[in-house]
Amino acid sequence: MGATEDNRGVGIDVQLCAEIPADNAVFLERNFTKDEQTYCIKSSGPQASFAGRWAAKEAVIKAVSSAATEVVWTKGAGAPLKEIEILRTEGKAPEVIFHGEAKAAVEKAGIKGVKVTISHSGSYAVAMAVAK
Amino acid sequence: MGATEDNRGVGIDVQLCAEIPADNAVFLERNFTKDEQTYCIKSSGPQASFAGRWAAKEAVIKAVSSAATEVVWTKGAGAPLKEIEILRTEGKAPEVIFHGEAKAAVEKAGIKGVKVTISHSGSYAVAMAVAK
Amino acid sequence: MGATEDNRGVGIDVQLCAEIPADNAVFLERNFTKDEQTYCIKSSGPQASFAGRWAAKEAVIKAVSSAATEVVWTKGAGAPLKEIEILRTEGKAPEVIFHGEAKAAVEKAGIKGVKVTISHSGSYAVAMAVAK
Repeated sequence: MGATEDNRGVGIDVQLCAEIPADNAVFLERNFTKDEQTYCIKSSGPQASFAGRWAAKEAVIKAVSSAATEVVWTKGAGAPLKEIEILRTEGKAPEVIFHGEAKAAVEKAGIKGVKVTISHSGSYAVAMAVAK
Repeated sequence: MGATEDNRGVGIDVQLCAEIPADNAVFLERNFTKDEQTYCIKSSGPQASFAGRWAAKEAVIKAVSSAATEVVWTKGAGAPLKEIEILRTEGKAPEVIFHGEAKAAVEKAGIKGVKVTISHSGSYAVAMAVAK
Repeated sequence: MGATEDNRGVGIDVQLCAEIPADNAVFLERNFTKDEQTYCIKSSGPQASFAGRWAAKEAVIKAVSSAATEVVWTKGAGAPLKEIEILRTEGKAPEVIFHGEAKAAVEKAGIKGVKVTISHSGSYAVAMAVAK
């Protein structure tokens, strides 16, 4: 199981949108980059947009853990979400960019690439990621 | 990230079942093949069944975009959902069949295969797809 | 599609937590190992924890079916969920262990490994699995 010739990892996350304090500037500043905040606030539904991005970051953390052979996120729930940036280009899939400690941890774990996908409907956002 | 040696793509979609107008013949005719309509209407819960299939089509569109290096669905939200058919065989995983413009676009993007999975519970349906 | 050089399979499952009879000892005993029951009962939210694990088992069944070329679960909905055990280690991804008939069926299908990921929020749990 999970032999060395294929250590691809998977991560999923579901998030009740209403739980994300999208009008709390301190929370947003701690977890989202300036570009992410701008994108979500301009979107047709900022609350759902922030929730989707939050779910994407959590899914990426799980996918990286699933692909790695050692513990990657030594801070546990304190993993630096802002350092996992989710960028959008019109008509293309979202892209994951790592910064700072997250970037170092992911490189140390030997992760070469991460793909992520996001959706929301009704009261929920979901995201899933694959890392290899 | 997303190096050429592995351009596998992922797509997820969640759908509030109640949002799907399962009793609107024009909507159904525009988005589902005859076989899909027959399958969903005969199912124990047509509304959830149509929502699951809708989510599957959306997940496939995202997975193909995620796997491709160029924009695949040039019509954006007007992508031809009916041309992405989701077929079921008892006891086996659902199968994705592309038709018409969708088939041409997917082939042009160099996609060799797509796998999809669907689930619903309570008020929601979710689906995810992997393309390569 | 799904050519022999890559028969990776995917499975997703969503579960309304309230539908899982987490206080029904017979139900729990039939579907969860002792270790799983201990883990879920000790968790901060046993109902959501059992629902997440249930979703994970269903996602694993689907992923294995999606990866296989033949029907794997000949008992259909009567697949032995207790024989698909989901184990947790702090800070690491959940692990899938097969027992008994499930182990034999998965080996017969040529499955070499399965990865799974779980999440819950609000009233729902979701899980997805990849098999190869």
